[in-house]
Amino acid sequence: MCHHCVTESVKSRMLNRRDFFRRSAVAGAAAAATISAPQALFAQKAMPTKVEDMTHTLTEDFPTYFGDQQFFVKPLFNYAEHKFNINEWRLNEHTGTHMDAPLHFSADGTSVDEIPVGDLVCPLAVIDIREKASTDADAQVTPDDIRAWIEANGDMPEGACVAMLSGWGEHVTTDKFRNVGEDGKTMHFPGFHIEAAQMLMEETSTKGIAVDTLSLDHGPSPDFAVHYEWLPSGRWGLECIANLEALPAAGATLVVGAPKVKGGSGGPARVFAMV
Amino acid sequence: MCHHCVTESVKSRMLNRRDFFRRSAVAGAAAAATISAPQALFAQKAMPTKVEDMTHTLTEDFPTYFGDQQFFVKPLFNYAEHKFNINEWRLNEHTGTHMDAPLHFSADGTSVDEIPVGDLVCPLAVIDIREKASTDADAQVTPDDIRAWIEANGDMPEGACVAMLSGWGEHVTTDKFRNVGEDGKTMHFPGFHIEAAQMLMEETSTKGIAVDTLSLDHGPSPDFAVHYEWLPSGRWGLECIANLEALPAAGATLVVGAPKVKGGSGGPARVFAMV
Repeated sequence: MCHHCVTESVKSRMLNRRDFFRRSAVAGAAAAATISAPQALFAQKAMPTKVEDMTHTLTEDFPTYFGDQQFFVKPLFNYAEHKFNINEWRLNEHTGTHMDAPLHFSADGTSVDEIPVGDLVCPLAVIDIREKASTDADAQVTPDDIRAWIEANGDMPEGACVAMLSGWGEHVTTDKFRNVGEDGKTMHFPGFHIEAAQMLMEETSTKGIAVDTLSLDHGPSPDFAVHYEWLPSGRWGLECIANLEALPAAGATLVVGAPKVKGGSGGPARVFAMV
Repeated sequence: MCHHCVTESVKSRMLNRRDFFRRSAVAGAAAAATISAPQALFAQKAMPTKVEDMTHTLTEDFPTYFGDQQFFVKPLFNYAEHKFNINEWRLNEHTGTHMDAPLHFSADGTSVDEIPVGDLVCPLAVIDIREKASTDADAQVTPDDIRAWIEANGDMPEGACVAMLSGWGEHVTTDKFRNVGEDGKTMHFPGFHIEAAQMLMEETSTKGIAVDTLSLDHGPSPDFAVHYEWLPSGRWGLECIANLEALPAAGATLVVGAPKVKGGSGGPARVFAMV
């Protein structure tokens, strides 16, 4: 989908959802009251014994949602000439393993620098949909998947990040990561179903969702339904997270090194998990 | 000091230090063998109960070593027009609270993406030189300061980051952060003394040093002595770290969310401490 198509699709959708912000604001207020302090999060779990890197290496050819290059490196100083190395970067905030702050899809939501630090260290729930994603590139995390996780692992932890493990991370260096279909424009990769996002908002205190693909919404989404439900409520997202397959379904602590850039709508993040 | 002056000063210094790389390579090899696995680091300390943010908010007017603006934000999409927000950033890798990777001051050292993830989660030793820095802007962390820390807190932990708390963080929004002297060019702020860096390399397994100022070397340094000793040995640095005064001298665990940019000489990092 090109820039223009995305913009038009989004505008059209907004006109049909007049009650959107009112509902989101109410949900956001409720969530804020139930999110735990980091003290409680740490106290609930066993001592971390291992650190996993959940971050893809960012390169100039890292795949992007829009399809165009979004990261550019220019050497400013080089060792041969200056005896030290410094590069300049130019990048779109939503490139590589990165954070979607509430401001990304809202007029005046929380920017990436304003997310409380305690919210960036949280329990991680990994929902494994690799089986269905292996036969359906448009697979989505559904309420049933969340219920199955809860049945196997107990209640969703307070203030968690809920991550989709679709297996898409292994495609990051190939065209299958964007997986454009026969029409030459529609992408096909897994994401969260809008009803799963709504369930997490209504029944849990989840503060973030993460995907191992390019978008919280699955590839063929015409309207960014999950983005528009989740982010304006004050919750955050992580896209292109790596290495989820190395973690247990429950028990890891996620540490989201989101960039502290004033007014940012998100940005490349260094993400660790402690198990 | 302007770009040209820095380059010339550095070139001149290199010509006088022919045995530099040989010595550094030996020290680097020794250090690598003694750095602990993250498992051991976590096992040594009490359960973390609190998360502190050690990162300054990055703004376009954040002070820089060279004095010129190094961070630029350009809106690409805005909510009023497009119904979502995305910015583009242009920045020098060494801006804001940021990592100096070994490659910053070496021909072919470790780039920021190559630093082992286990090295980015480590015990933190905070050396408080606020008293002497309050009366001497050119104060340095000396071997005596390190010895005093050890006397008070026991041996330096395995694979630690040793941080200088000079109190300079509170000046970050004023001209005192760069503190240019009466000659109109020489800066005056605290840093590590070369002998302190050498002591940490020879007598401990310290993997990183951090400063709450613009440079590992103190402001009036003519030759980046600490940069050229420390970084090419395979060790890293953090500059413009914030909030050290909130931490104990010993016992905190530092989590360095360094950007995972291929070939980067460093970059803005989100840094947390768990106490």
